[in-house]
Amino acid sequence: MPGFTDLHIHAPQWPQAGLALDRPLQEWLNTYTFPLEAKFKDLAYAEKVYRNLISELLANGTTTGLFFGSVDTDANLVLAKICAQLGQRAFIGKVAMDNPEQTPDFYRDNSSKEALDETKRFIEEVLKLQKTNSADITPVITPRFVPSCTDETLDGLGKLAAKYDLPVQTHCSESIWEDQYAIERFHKRDAQVLEQFGLLTDKTVLAHGTQLTDGDLELLRNKQTALAHCPISNVYFGNNVMRVKDAHDKNVKVGLGTDISGGFSPSIYRNMQQAIMSSQTLQDETNQNTRLTAANVFYLATVGGALALHLKTGRIKASFKADLQIVQDQYYELSSNHPQEIFERLIYHTNKENIKQVYVSGKLVHDNMGENNGK
Amino acid sequence: MPGFTDLHIHAPQWPQAGLALDRPLQEWLNTYTFPLEAKFKDLAYAEKVYRNLISELLANGTTTGLFFGSVDTDANLVLAKICAQLGQRAFIGKVAMDNPEQTPDFYRDNSSKEALDETKRFIEEVLKLQKTNSADITPVITPRFVPSCTDETLDGLGKLAAKYDLPVQTHCSESIWEDQYAIERFHKRDAQVLEQFGLLTDKTVLAHGTQLTDGDLELLRNKQTALAHCPISNVYFGNNVMRVKDAHDKNVKVGLGTDISGGFSPSIYRNMQQAIMSSQTLQDETNQNTRLTAANVFYLATVGGALALHLKTGRIKASFKADLQIVQDQYYELSSNHPQEIFERLIYHTNKENIKQVYVSGKLVHDNMGENNGK
Repeated sequence: MPGFTDLHIHAPQWPQAGLALDRPLQEWLNTYTFPLEAKFKDLAYAEKVYRNLISELLANGTTTGLFFGSVDTDANLVLAKICAQLGQRAFIGKVAMDNPEQTPDFYRDNSSKEALDETKRFIEEVLKLQKTNSADITPVITPRFVPSCTDETLDGLGKLAAKYDLPVQTHCSESIWEDQYAIERFHKRDAQVLEQFGLLTDKTVLAHGTQLTDGDLELLRNKQTALAHCPISNVYFGNNVMRVKDAHDKNVKVGLGTDISGGFSPSIYRNMQQAIMSSQTLQDETNQNTRLTAANVFYLATVGGALALHLKTGRIKASFKADLQIVQDQYYELSSNHPQEIFERLIYHTNKENIKQVYVSGKLVHDNMGENNGK
Repeated sequence: MPGFTDLHIHAPQWPQAGLALDRPLQEWLNTYTFPLEAKFKDLAYAEKVYRNLISELLANGTTTGLFFGSVDTDANLVLAKICAQLGQRAFIGKVAMDNPEQTPDFYRDNSSKEALDETKRFIEEVLKLQKTNSADITPVITPRFVPSCTDETLDGLGKLAAKYDLPVQTHCSESIWEDQYAIERFHKRDAQVLEQFGLLTDKTVLAHGTQLTDGDLELLRNKQTALAHCPISNVYFGNNVMRVKDAHDKNVKVGLGTDISGGFSPSIYRNMQQAIMSSQTLQDETNQNTRLTAANVFYLATVGGALALHLKTGRIKASFKADLQIVQDQYYELSSNHPQEIFERLIYHTNKENIKQVYVSGKLVHDNMGENNGK
C-alpha cells in the first residue's frame, strides 16, 4: 500500500501520549504539556525522544510527517537531523509563541523579535541541511495558534512565509474556546485572522477545524488551504466532530493527523478507524450524509495528505514517489478474500507488527521481516 | 496485570470482524452475518475459525470469554473443545432463534422444540466435557434476543436456566429498533420481557443496554443482573452511548465486551480506550459526570467482568485464580514513570505484540517471549 501522511504531530509531546487525558485542556496544557515541551532545551533528551518517535512513526507506515517542534531551535534541528538519518520525509516547524497573556513564563519566545529571528535561523539551518545530504526535510512557518502569538509575530510570520515561499501550519477553530478567543480579540473568525496576517495560503495546513462554519470552509476553499482532521484528539479536546464530508464536498483539501499527544496513538490506521467511527456519531445528530467509508479515510491518509503538502505521494503510480508499506493480512485464511474484504481487514486490523517493510522514495526505512522469518 | 474478561463475543462472526461496517444493521445481518454463521455446520470450518479466534483472544490478554456460538450444537461443541485445549476459560451458549418472522429460513431453529432440545443436548455435552478433562467451560442459556425467539422458546429457556442453575446471556435494548420491538410485541420494556420469562437472574449478562431507562437500571439492580458494555460496537449499531457511570452508581454490575463482530477489534485494550472516548462524548451532550478514567475502564475489564460471571478472577490477590498477563511498557525510557503514568501507558499503548505471556489459573496459555529474545 502507499505510505501514509500524518499532517499533525507535536514531536516533543510524544513522551506523554496517552497520559492525563482525563484532565481539562487548560490543566493538561499547563501542568503536563508546556513543562514537557520546555524540557527539550536538553538536546540529549530531544535526541532520545525524537529517535524513538521517528522510528515509531516509520514502523506504523507513516512515510511523511508534518511536525510541530518546540520553541527551541536547536532541539528542532535535532529532530530534522534524526528525520534525515532515519529517512522520514518531514516538514518541521519551530513553534512561535510569544504572547505573555496566553503562554507560561517558563516556556515562550521572550519577544516577537526572538520568535521571528529564531524562526529565520531554523529555516536557514534546515535549508543548509537539505543541500548537504539531500534530506527531504522542509521548514514550516509555525505560529502555535492565534492566542499564543502577538500581532507582531503573526504579521512577521506571514511575511516570512511569503519571503521563503514555505508551508504554514497552525491550529484553527479546534475548540469552542479557541473559536471564541479570535472573535473577542480580533472581532473576526479564527481563519479570517490567519488570512489577515498572510498565514492562509495554498501551502497552509490547519489542524482540527471542529468548529468551522460554512463561511470558514468557503474561505479555505478559495485559499486552497488544507485541513488536518485529527479524530482521536478531537474526542478529547475538540468539543465536536469535524465535518469531513462537508469539507470535501466543498472542495477543501483534507488529510489526517494523529495530533500526538492530544491524540494518544502514533498510528494513522487507528486514526482512520476513529475517523469512520466519529463520522458515524455525527450522522445521528445532524443528517444522513456524514458517514465515512474505509475507502474515504484511506483517501484522506494517502491522497489527501499528499495534496495538502503538494507531494507526488499517496498513490502507487508511474511518476509518483515510491513511498510504500508492505502489510500482512493476518486473517487471510479465514474468509473469502474479495479485494474489498482484504482492504477493509487491512484498514481495521493492521498493527505495527503486521507492517513488514516501509519505504520512503524507494529507500527501505523500516524492516521487521527478519524477526518473523527466523533470519 | 490481571487477565481480562470479555463479556460479549459472537465466536462465528470472527471472520467478518471489520467488514461491511458501513452498511445498515439489517443489511449487515441478513447479507453478511447470518450466512456466515450458517457456514458453521461445516465442522472443519468451525475448527479453523475457532482455533484462530481463541488464540487471538488469549494473545490479547483475554483470559475469560463469554461466547455466543451459532445455532448448530456440534459446531458449538467444537468451540468448547478448542477452548479446553488452548486453556481459555469460557462460557459458551448455543444460540436459540426460532421466530420465523425475525430469522432467515436458511438459519434458524426449525421449531421451539428443536431450540430447547438442542440447548439441552449442548448443556449435557459440555457438562460431560467438564468432568472428563477438568476444562473450565460453562454452558450458557442463550436466546439470541427477544425478537428472534417465540414465546415458547423464551419460556422454555427460562426453565432450563432454573433447572440447571446456569448463566444466561442475550442482547437487551441495543438499539432504538430493539427497544421498540419489545414494546410493540409485549407492551413491556425489553428487560421486563426477559424478567417475565425467568431470564433476568443474578447470573444473566445483558449485552449493550444503550437504550436503558432509569427504571430498567433499577430492575437490573434488583435482579443483580450484569451489563456487558460494548463501546466499539455501539458506535456502529447502538444509536447511543451506554450510561456506564449511571449504571455503576445505581449498583448495577458492568463489564466490557468486544462484541466481535459488531465491534471489529478482539482487544479489550481497544475497548477500554473506546469506553473512555465514548464516555467523553456523552459528557458533552448531557452532563458533566459521565467521563470514565483509565482506572474506571480497567475495573470494568477485570473486576467488573469477574463479578458478572461470579468468578474469583480480575485481581492479583490471595485466594483468587492466577489469571495473569505479563505486559511490556514499550515507552518506559521516555518519561518519569510514576505508577500512574506506567498504568495509563499500558491502557493506551498495549498491542498484542507487547503482551509477552498469558496465564489462566496459573497455566501458561500464550507465550511470545521467544520471538523477541532470539530463542
